[in-house]
Amino acid sequence: MNSQRTPTERFHSIIPAGGIGSRLWPLSRASAPKFLHDLTGSGQTLLQDTWDRLTPIAGEDRILVVTGQAHAKAVNEQIEGLLPQNLVLEQSPKDSTAAIALAAAILMKREPDVIIGSFAADHVINESAIFLQTVKEAIEVAATGKIVTIGIQPSEPSVAFGYIKMGDKLGIAQAPSARAVDSFVEKPNIAKARKFVESGKYLWNAGMFVAPAALLLDELAKNEPALHADLMRIADAWGTSSQAEVLEDVWPGLKKVAIDYSIAEPAAEAGLVAVVPGKFTWHDVGDFAAIAELQSQGRRGNLAVLGNAKVLADSSSGILVSDTDRLIALIGVEDIIVVDTPDALLVTTKEHAQRVKSLVDALKATGHSEVL
Amino acid sequence: MNSQRTPTERFHSIIPAGGIGSRLWPLSRASAPKFLHDLTGSGQTLLQDTWDRLTPIAGEDRILVVTGQAHAKAVNEQIEGLLPQNLVLEQSPKDSTAAIALAAAILMKREPDVIIGSFAADHVINESAIFLQTVKEAIEVAATGKIVTIGIQPSEPSVAFGYIKMGDKLGIAQAPSARAVDSFVEKPNIAKARKFVESGKYLWNAGMFVAPAALLLDELAKNEPALHADLMRIADAWGTSSQAEVLEDVWPGLKKVAIDYSIAEPAAEAGLVAVVPGKFTWHDVGDFAAIAELQSQGRRGNLAVLGNAKVLADSSSGILVSDTDRLIALIGVEDIIVVDTPDALLVTTKEHAQRVKSLVDALKATGHSEVL
Repeated sequence: MNSQRTPTERFHSIIPAGGIGSRLWPLSRASAPKFLHDLTGSGQTLLQDTWDRLTPIAGEDRILVVTGQAHAKAVNEQIEGLLPQNLVLEQSPKDSTAAIALAAAILMKREPDVIIGSFAADHVINESAIFLQTVKEAIEVAATGKIVTIGIQPSEPSVAFGYIKMGDKLGIAQAPSARAVDSFVEKPNIAKARKFVESGKYLWNAGMFVAPAALLLDELAKNEPALHADLMRIADAWGTSSQAEVLEDVWPGLKKVAIDYSIAEPAAEAGLVAVVPGKFTWHDVGDFAAIAELQSQGRRGNLAVLGNAKVLADSSSGILVSDTDRLIALIGVEDIIVVDTPDALLVTTKEHAQRVKSLVDALKATGHSEVL
Repeated sequence: MNSQRTPTERFHSIIPAGGIGSRLWPLSRASAPKFLHDLTGSGQTLLQDTWDRLTPIAGEDRILVVTGQAHAKAVNEQIEGLLPQNLVLEQSPKDSTAAIALAAAILMKREPDVIIGSFAADHVINESAIFLQTVKEAIEVAATGKIVTIGIQPSEPSVAFGYIKMGDKLGIAQAPSARAVDSFVEKPNIAKARKFVESGKYLWNAGMFVAPAALLLDELAKNEPALHADLMRIADAWGTSSQAEVLEDVWPGLKKVAIDYSIAEPAAEAGLVAVVPGKFTWHDVGDFAAIAELQSQGRRGNLAVLGNAKVLADSSSGILVSDTDRLIALIGVEDIIVVDTPDALLVTTKEHAQRVKSLVDALKATGHSEVL
């Protein structure tokens, strides 16, 4: 271990690229999940945007992607700079603890003093420079022995996100805005959300974590010892001749648990979690209404178009997402959501965007797995 | 001429199968117009329904179809009983006078005392027995030397149709409901339409004509002598070795004029037109809202589906017309119109169904003829 390295030199990014994004069906689906799509009209997919946001701080050889085996090809095609040893393929989805803690354990085997930062592959962040500055502060705080989350300054009293209640300032010179985390709060109702935002003491929980890998895994060992042991066994075998055998043995039985429950909340209770407020705009692009909002910045009330569709719209507003080259004509439909793919078409409204998930559940139940 | 034949024995049907049905784009288009589609869910196309409605009175060998050259193959495939000599192919569309009067002239060459009845290929009529009875009465009236139209008993004060103002009863034994036509009236505004319907003196003009071919052509000769001469020249050459040459010479210059103006209205002024009220239900299926209405009989407020789409609908109403096998999901969209074809998709509402035509005009203007 080279203890002379600066915190930033110890830093390594993890990009968990999982989750189908059911609310974005039929664009996002098992074979082509959300992070593989360009949902912002940037010309790049969300995964590529995430990668490009992190390379200035981590470098191309210090970003590790965790994704499903089915997406290995797409991920390698989209991210040319990804090193083979930095791609961790999951046999099956096992929730965020397995993905992030396994990546942390693999990296810790390589560099025992590594500080990891985990950033989802399917979020949208606009101001990269502010984001990077925030991550740098979080790394400095992590180096003091904290699990650090980056909370988002709320722009509205959203009920779609969990919140982080801030405690006292930590007084760290290189991270002046860092504070203790008092607690993590589940998604509130609208009345509570309003109070949270008015108080100025709450941030949105965007699920970003920066921490020394060793500390993160110690906390996991305290709260989920069996899962910790399983993941360490896999990490020990990773890249060796016994990898396949161990995976076959251990992976199917891995406990599925969100990192919020296995690490973040108990560590916060133990006073081990800090937060750096992020003043960049952030979206988790949870449904098509969110995409419409992203697109409509600067052209309110009109129709946002994603994809290469030929579109003829008359008195229509909302969002049109096209994965085909068909001509699409809209007349007099307002706040509409149209998602056109080769084998499935969705028509709904912004108001009902969240209900897409239950439709996907219904498709599962009725045996339409060929379009999921 | 065998003057001993009954009026019904002299009868020959004409089915003008023209018109693209722009308001039904993208289902109906130049290459596959309205009459070639099943718009009622009967399992047959409108043309086939029209054919089947007429065979009980005219017989399969006494129905002549006039259509565009591009549709010859589809028409022959759909109507097995159509005799080759009863298919008249137009080089280019020349409006209803050319289509109907040429057919009448060709038939008159074969049978000088023929009584023709012209019935559009793209209308929907539900009660065939009442329709046939009405046509029989019209034939009887025509045999007395009249041009006879069949007017539809209005079910509502529609502004989508022209009206026929009825005059006195004609007192014909075999056609007790026949009356003189006082005048043809253009599509009214809603206030006028209400007055028309309340008065009980007006019928919808459904564009159905029954008349001795000789009388029809005489009237055309009075009002449009050049067009009459052109059509007679074509009819003389029809089926002879000079047909192609005459068509090439005459067809491009044929005057485009609706039969309402060239024959019906002037003949009505001359007291030569009679009307038989039709008490069957009739639809011209002018737009997708009309299709939705046809389909929703018996399941008001729900979603009507035409075609073989796999559909998953949640809290949605309106009409879905599918010409593909894609899965279509609708969530929370009311009075919606979705028309899904391999190369074009339309999303609008019942309220805006009439605006589809201007969209098609816009497509023409912007050079998207590949989908028209």
